[in-house]
Amino acid sequence: MTTPTSEQKIVYTLTDEAPFLATGSFLPIVRAFTSAAGIKVETSDISVAARVLAGFPERLTEEQQVTDTLAELGELTKDPSCNLIKLPNISASIPQLKAAIAELQSQGYDIPDYPDEPSTDEEKDIQARYSKVLGSAVNPVLRQGNSDRRAPPAVKAFARKFPHSMGEWSKASRSHADYMRGGDFFSSEQSVTMEEAGDVRLEFVDKDGNVEVKKTVALQEGEVFDSMFMSAKALDSFFERTLQECKADGVMWSLHVKATMMKVSHPIVFGHAVRVFYREVFEKYGELFEELGVNPNNGMNSVYEKIKTLPQSQQEEIEEAIHACYEHRPEMAMVDSVKGITNLHIPSDVIVDASMPAMIRNSGKMWGRDGKVKDTKAVMPESTYARIYQEMIHFCRTNGAFDPTTMGSVPNVGLMAMKAEEYGSHDKTFEMSQDGTMRVVKADGTVLMQHDVEKGDIWRACQTKDAAVRDWVKLAVTRSRQSDTPAIFWLDAERAHDRQLRLKVEKYLKEHDTEGLDLRIMGYSRAIRTSMERMIRGKDTISVSGNVLRDYLTDLFPIMELGTSAKMLSIVPMLNGGGMYETGAGGSAPKHVQQVQEENHLRWDSLGEFLALAVSLEELGIKNDNPQAELMAKALDAATGQLLENNKSPSRKVGELDNRGSHFYLAMYWAQYLAEQTENADLAARFAPLAKALTENEAKIVQELADAQGQAADLGGYYHPDMAKVDAVMRPSKTLNDALAAL
Amino acid sequence: MTTPTSEQKIVYTLTDEAPFLATGSFLPIVRAFTSAAGIKVETSDISVAARVLAGFPERLTEEQQVTDTLAELGELTKDPSCNLIKLPNISASIPQLKAAIAELQSQGYDIPDYPDEPSTDEEKDIQARYSKVLGSAVNPVLRQGNSDRRAPPAVKAFARKFPHSMGEWSKASRSHADYMRGGDFFSSEQSVTMEEAGDVRLEFVDKDGNVEVKKTVALQEGEVFDSMFMSAKALDSFFERTLQECKADGVMWSLHVKATMMKVSHPIVFGHAVRVFYREVFEKYGELFEELGVNPNNGMNSVYEKIKTLPQSQQEEIEEAIHACYEHRPEMAMVDSVKGITNLHIPSDVIVDASMPAMIRNSGKMWGRDGKVKDTKAVMPESTYARIYQEMIHFCRTNGAFDPTTMGSVPNVGLMAMKAEEYGSHDKTFEMSQDGTMRVVKADGTVLMQHDVEKGDIWRACQTKDAAVRDWVKLAVTRSRQSDTPAIFWLDAERAHDRQLRLKVEKYLKEHDTEGLDLRIMGYSRAIRTSMERMIRGKDTISVSGNVLRDYLTDLFPIMELGTSAKMLSIVPMLNGGGMYETGAGGSAPKHVQQVQEENHLRWDSLGEFLALAVSLEELGIKNDNPQAELMAKALDAATGQLLENNKSPSRKVGELDNRGSHFYLAMYWAQYLAEQTENADLAARFAPLAKALTENEAKIVQELADAQGQAADLGGYYHPDMAKVDAVMRPSKTLNDALAAL
Repeated sequence: MTTPTSEQKIVYTLTDEAPFLATGSFLPIVRAFTSAAGIKVETSDISVAARVLAGFPERLTEEQQVTDTLAELGELTKDPSCNLIKLPNISASIPQLKAAIAELQSQGYDIPDYPDEPSTDEEKDIQARYSKVLGSAVNPVLRQGNSDRRAPPAVKAFARKFPHSMGEWSKASRSHADYMRGGDFFSSEQSVTMEEAGDVRLEFVDKDGNVEVKKTVALQEGEVFDSMFMSAKALDSFFERTLQECKADGVMWSLHVKATMMKVSHPIVFGHAVRVFYREVFEKYGELFEELGVNPNNGMNSVYEKIKTLPQSQQEEIEEAIHACYEHRPEMAMVDSVKGITNLHIPSDVIVDASMPAMIRNSGKMWGRDGKVKDTKAVMPESTYARIYQEMIHFCRTNGAFDPTTMGSVPNVGLMAMKAEEYGSHDKTFEMSQDGTMRVVKADGTVLMQHDVEKGDIWRACQTKDAAVRDWVKLAVTRSRQSDTPAIFWLDAERAHDRQLRLKVEKYLKEHDTEGLDLRIMGYSRAIRTSMERMIRGKDTISVSGNVLRDYLTDLFPIMELGTSAKMLSIVPMLNGGGMYETGAGGSAPKHVQQVQEENHLRWDSLGEFLALAVSLEELGIKNDNPQAELMAKALDAATGQLLENNKSPSRKVGELDNRGSHFYLAMYWAQYLAEQTENADLAARFAPLAKALTENEAKIVQELADAQGQAADLGGYYHPDMAKVDAVMRPSKTLNDALAAL
Repeated sequence: MTTPTSEQKIVYTLTDEAPFLATGSFLPIVRAFTSAAGIKVETSDISVAARVLAGFPERLTEEQQVTDTLAELGELTKDPSCNLIKLPNISASIPQLKAAIAELQSQGYDIPDYPDEPSTDEEKDIQARYSKVLGSAVNPVLRQGNSDRRAPPAVKAFARKFPHSMGEWSKASRSHADYMRGGDFFSSEQSVTMEEAGDVRLEFVDKDGNVEVKKTVALQEGEVFDSMFMSAKALDSFFERTLQECKADGVMWSLHVKATMMKVSHPIVFGHAVRVFYREVFEKYGELFEELGVNPNNGMNSVYEKIKTLPQSQQEEIEEAIHACYEHRPEMAMVDSVKGITNLHIPSDVIVDASMPAMIRNSGKMWGRDGKVKDTKAVMPESTYARIYQEMIHFCRTNGAFDPTTMGSVPNVGLMAMKAEEYGSHDKTFEMSQDGTMRVVKADGTVLMQHDVEKGDIWRACQTKDAAVRDWVKLAVTRSRQSDTPAIFWLDAERAHDRQLRLKVEKYLKEHDTEGLDLRIMGYSRAIRTSMERMIRGKDTISVSGNVLRDYLTDLFPIMELGTSAKMLSIVPMLNGGGMYETGAGGSAPKHVQQVQEENHLRWDSLGEFLALAVSLEELGIKNDNPQAELMAKALDAATGQLLENNKSPSRKVGELDNRGSHFYLAMYWAQYLAEQTENADLAARFAPLAKALTENEAKIVQELADAQGQAADLGGYYHPDMAKVDAVMRPSKTLNDALAAL
């Protein structure tokens, strides 16, 4: 038996809302089980409240003070022994932050109010400290590696046995993807690899030769640097063409962008779509809209909001002008046909990586104004990645909808580390205010890349660090080897960036033993086609992709295979050797907390935690040569499989099995497996009594858990609940608690 | 200067109808030019009349007797020095043969009548002799090699400058190809390679174990032998599904087979379609139809013909029943909407290799009953090759119609020698009369392949000889090298036959120097996709394909590139080293002859002859190290290019430039090029006077040629015209004749 060492440690994050409450029930089970295998499970509080408190130590009593756990975890990610289970946390908006502050103040924490408009130095300091808590503050600190996402065997088996619905495909479907055939980022992309480290300047040169340095970026040796632009004129013509085609063909029009992630470029693209669709409105009321502060990049919602200040008659006139546009424009896909919310209402409503798989799953159709589903032109201006959707549409049109009961899987190894590629481009994206030249210039004055641009064009640069690529290649080889699965590097010979990457891939593949592995490099169209052809024959193919494709593919394929991407394993093998195991793509679920507060029923599904923990244990076992940990992992996977098969996932209805009941069943199956296995007699003996106790008391425990439901529950806080109260609410079964304690 | 040797000889075939008349004008020009390069041009008469006369030497006077030129040419194909220009000839039907006999008899040839129902031994002998002249009797004797088809540079340049019309493609087109997903030949194909020569028996074993030998086939060592079957039940369900889908989707239904070439299997497939479409009619009148001798394999035409013997009222009843079917069936594509001739009328009306390119060129649409074009489901039951059309439809749907002004070319190297593959399967195709097993058994009793079959299933076997494959590989390497063009072997890893072929290809590629060549092996879908992706970027890609694909691809791509496949160079490099240069895919054009007889205008376009002659000269030059021949070839190609560019091809209208005028211009451009070139001063000097004479007399000659038109022309016969009369009709310009004679 392996002696526990200080390295055999799992860090389990305490976060917010539903996942945090679920942890209150699940963590005691985890600790009971893992301690038997000599594994310590520590917690780390990265809730909004903890991060707020960490910002103001000097204002708190010694007892109230908390350490800066996020910073600590950031350090931990550099430790090769890092083994971190990361649950969903709140990416706080300002209203959420203010609510958290108020709650903490009411609990006696002397923290300052959030200064909306700071004037004094002190207020500015306060705002700066709070700003660290805002938005997506956790992932950038913790995601110090590339991405490994896959469907766990238990989840795949569940989908095969209980397949989700898939809309039938007609071979005569008119639906298709449409994208620019020139003038987009894809067409203009240039890319260089830095021979040595150094600064580059992103410069705009106007028609008179005046140079404006937009930004200076420090680049590493071997770093790939791309620049590209989208022509505003080409974009507008493209939108006009797509609209006219839809009108002529009687096909619905829909726009798919990712304004949330590509948060500088895509809202601008969205704004162009709004201006072209409602061309007459913007031509007639353009000046008025400017006065009112209408920003088409925020969607038609912005128009409706801003014109509310106008006299009623003028509002009606504008609304009539808007309605007049619908006469000569094609039907537009609706986000909510009941409420009349169109595709152009709010830029974040239709997010390509979720909306396109949904459309494809739904027979290639979207919802029209009349609430009926219709064939659709899916408009995705940037052609780089849009082509993969056209491939899948063609494939389904020819071969029919995918069959979840027989289809193979497409796991992903994604280049994510160090803000790779377009997803790190926000601070290097510019909308041109005049005609001229954008160029990338080395410190010595060498012009690396340049583009002639026009007013309104969107220019951007992206970085990809050599170390990230090298690690990504390694991860791909490792995953291909471990899973005995062919892997395809999705690198398009027609993309400047991908040609640079291909050189690196070929170079770094030589660092590995690839004997017997099936590793290929293909353009996107061929890669997805090959993967789909294998998939419908039940074969798996790893997609080894860049960052945006990672994002898209880890929704696209899981939604076809599993009906959701939330059931995927999401692992971040850290650059330095550690690992982070992310759970639940579904956010932190505020509505779930409401239900607990009102009727003490938690419908949060901890499947993600089960899966993450199993991989965490497996990795820990492999790294520390701890076969017990590996056995625990195997047993947990088996238990998860049984849980799915027996449908012991939480119900949405009060009185029925909830998150806690689901945890009980997991514990029972887990213990049963360990008690019955013959690999390790010691563990079998240790878990036999627990298995017996839980099995014999199944009805009793389920009843105790059910009895707890039905009335309001007091958690002692929302952002910063009382731990004792949470414990009481989340562990209401004495029989279960006793059985665990006996272990 | 090379001395002419006996090998430096071109054999020019004399055939029938329009091409023969054109030869009357063109051949004197050819002879005048080639003799200057030391090349002899001999003729060989393979007209129907000559072949008839060759059959009855004993009944003719010594003067009347002709030699068996076809047999002589057959021998010539085995000679490495063979250089044969083959013009289109009549594949005689019985009525045509009878007309030829009558004409010869009237000219004093004592040949017997054709005995329709021979009873005596003598009559049987006569019929046997005549049967050698019937049908496609020439190609099997002469095509002793694989196939090399390509668009000549002059033709390609012409298409780029004067592009043919291409229908626009909508991205929302509903058109698609549909094919069986199981139960077809593709799904059941088995294939073996013979380790040693020997006989195999094709046996049917019934349910009681009784064995019936259907056929015994002698196979060579290394020969590939395939067997496969199409399930009648699966075929019927497939047709029913496609009909229901069309009805539901509002898309037109059309059937595409090749009953002319796959003359056993495809008429049966066609018959199934007829029976399924008009299910109620055949259910109700099945017995009556059988009595009447209705054969659905001959199309609905057979029904209409046969019911004519019935009382009027019964005819009307059946016609009403037929019309009732249209109520619940989808709209069917029409062959002739004016005459009401549907897709199911006559099996040879819609021939897949011509009809599918036409549909794709026509925006993916076919003609409906109302004479309007509509989106269509193109039904091609056998999935083996149908998938390439679906790929092209998808491609056009995504990327728009091909652009003849910029697109590259897809030349073909086709496996054709020794009746390769399915095109040699007619005598080994059987429709099952009962359930049982079909098997292929070696002489020693070893069962090589077997299939469980049901009544009505179509079973067939195909042969591919090793020597043919070996030569095909060599031809592919040679063409890739000579044209500096990548070549793709279209071999599908999912096809049993292709897997056998792939082994041979890999083996035989090693016999060649492939250094620096881009030779790849791909499945059909990927092969066509790759070729199209290159094509729209202006790049050429050789398709190296099997026999059926050869047939399909040499229509499909030329129709996209050139608007017709008739302008392709069609070369048969003989297995023994010689070469045949085929001209004009458009048949021998009886209507053209009528026009000559009525108004002395020949609209036949000799472009095919120009192209074939140029390659013939080039090959002859290379083989005999005769640079003058190569120069003549280069000059001829240039002249052809100029002819096309200046639009000096024949007009269809009397009084305008016809075939003879076109020949004059060719001669003029050819002479001008030779006179002006500086490679060979001797030739330049020799052709200078001719160039001068023709250039100076252009108007005069054109006028002389025009003056000859307008009244009836006497050719002294149709099948066996008078040579002197033909000469007089076809060479009416004294100025031109004198100039040529002076050379």
